[in-house]
Amino acid sequence: MEQRPGETRPQVVCGRNAVEEALASGRADQLLLAREENSPALRRLAALAAAAGVPVKEVTRQKLASLCGEANHQGVALTLAAAPYATLDDLLAAAKQRGEAPFLVLCDSLEDPHNLGAILRTAECVGVHGVVLPKRRSVSLTPAVAKAASGALLHMPVARVANLAEAVTRLQQAGVWVYGAHMEGEDYRTVDYTGGCALVIGGEGGGLSRLLRQKCDKLVRLPMCGHVNSLNASVAAGVLLYRMAEGRPGMEGGGKA
Amino acid sequence: MEQRPGETRPQVVCGRNAVEEALASGRADQLLLAREENSPALRRLAALAAAAGVPVKEVTRQKLASLCGEANHQGVALTLAAAPYATLDDLLAAAKQRGEAPFLVLCDSLEDPHNLGAILRTAECVGVHGVVLPKRRSVSLTPAVAKAASGALLHMPVARVANLAEAVTRLQQAGVWVYGAHMEGEDYRTVDYTGGCALVIGGEGGGLSRLLRQKCDKLVRLPMCGHVNSLNASVAAGVLLYRMAEGRPGMEGGGKA
Repeated sequence: MEQRPGETRPQVVCGRNAVEEALASGRADQLLLAREENSPALRRLAALAAAAGVPVKEVTRQKLASLCGEANHQGVALTLAAAPYATLDDLLAAAKQRGEAPFLVLCDSLEDPHNLGAILRTAECVGVHGVVLPKRRSVSLTPAVAKAASGALLHMPVARVANLAEAVTRLQQAGVWVYGAHMEGEDYRTVDYTGGCALVIGGEGGGLSRLLRQKCDKLVRLPMCGHVNSLNASVAAGVLLYRMAEGRPGMEGGGKA
Repeated sequence: MEQRPGETRPQVVCGRNAVEEALASGRADQLLLAREENSPALRRLAALAAAAGVPVKEVTRQKLASLCGEANHQGVALTLAAAPYATLDDLLAAAKQRGEAPFLVLCDSLEDPHNLGAILRTAECVGVHGVVLPKRRSVSLTPAVAKAASGALLHMPVARVANLAEAVTRLQQAGVWVYGAHMEGEDYRTVDYTGGCALVIGGEGGGLSRLLRQKCDKLVRLPMCGHVNSLNASVAAGVLLYRMAEGRPGMEGGGKA
């Protein structure tokens, strides 16, 4: 919900009935509860959100009021994502439907909407079947992300999972090789990406978490020869995705190193 | 001079004497003149700015006052870039000093400071000797660019030229092959980038201008297989620069397609 001048505000639904309806929409982004209240009605909405996989956050009544404006929020509000969320199974099904080996991107703790938007855009351009985000400690599908994605959100399914490491396990069980972008990995140009594969990209601050690094089948590294030795997350993802996509449907040709 | 919450304001110098001193600093970004005034002193500063290659812009006194705050601007102000500007010859000299064939990036009409910052960062990581910007219709080295470049501006010379097409001609005369990123070009994976080379990246809106397309030695294309068919400018630059850098000093290894 980062706000910058000229950007659309997130769509907000206020009040108990409207929130309950919106929870079923697939676009529910986050449930916001007034910290000062603890009524059975609000506890019930929190349980419904948890069941629907929607993160719940407690905020002050003041914060709620500033989001809801004149509307009577009754202690609860819900932000809508710029696009509906899919499930991990939806992404695997999308690959199967196209008759292709799965090609996925997992984003760990991305905070910058420009980066997530640019990654969605690149992913759509190289034929990725879906993008996976963690529910917490990650930017979600805000209007700013949709804008940076430049239309890609209309075509790219995005799943949100409670636990990215568990998602990696499920992908591995489905025969997908999981590659993590990490500076201690192998030179990305020497790796064979044939078959089902997923790329895990770390956040702008700390990169991949240790647990995720351990879960990946292979870590891949972008060589660097300067002083800064760190790339923008969406640029790193772009370089790796273009290499991983070589030889995939619609991306044939080239080949010369 | 885009302003977003939490970002540093551009450094502004106000008043005739201070502006005249700052014009010699190499960091002069833009001279701002009050549209309502036309004194010999201001005309003299405009001539000095032109001689130093600093763009001149007329603004309202109100705009000047809002930039200068309490300071007495005397009808003139100057913004300072986050880093000093180099010349095209400086960039070629930097390559020569390293004993390497020139490797440069030219950015045509980039508007987004995040994109320019990310391009500077990638360029620094792959061993580019310098980046060239046009004086007009381009974001300059603002604090927002410096922030997105994540330290790369300390190491990457940036030249500003009046005419990007003329800069291309000069590079070609110096034996540099100039590649333009354009969707009607050759598949970027089939091109041999050995020797001195420069990449021209177009702006977020219109891409490369027709004149620049015609001036380039070769246009190169990133294959795409989705619906959106357009990449973020810094991602496109990143993919192309990583391919162009293969085999260059510090970037050896890999090689397998």
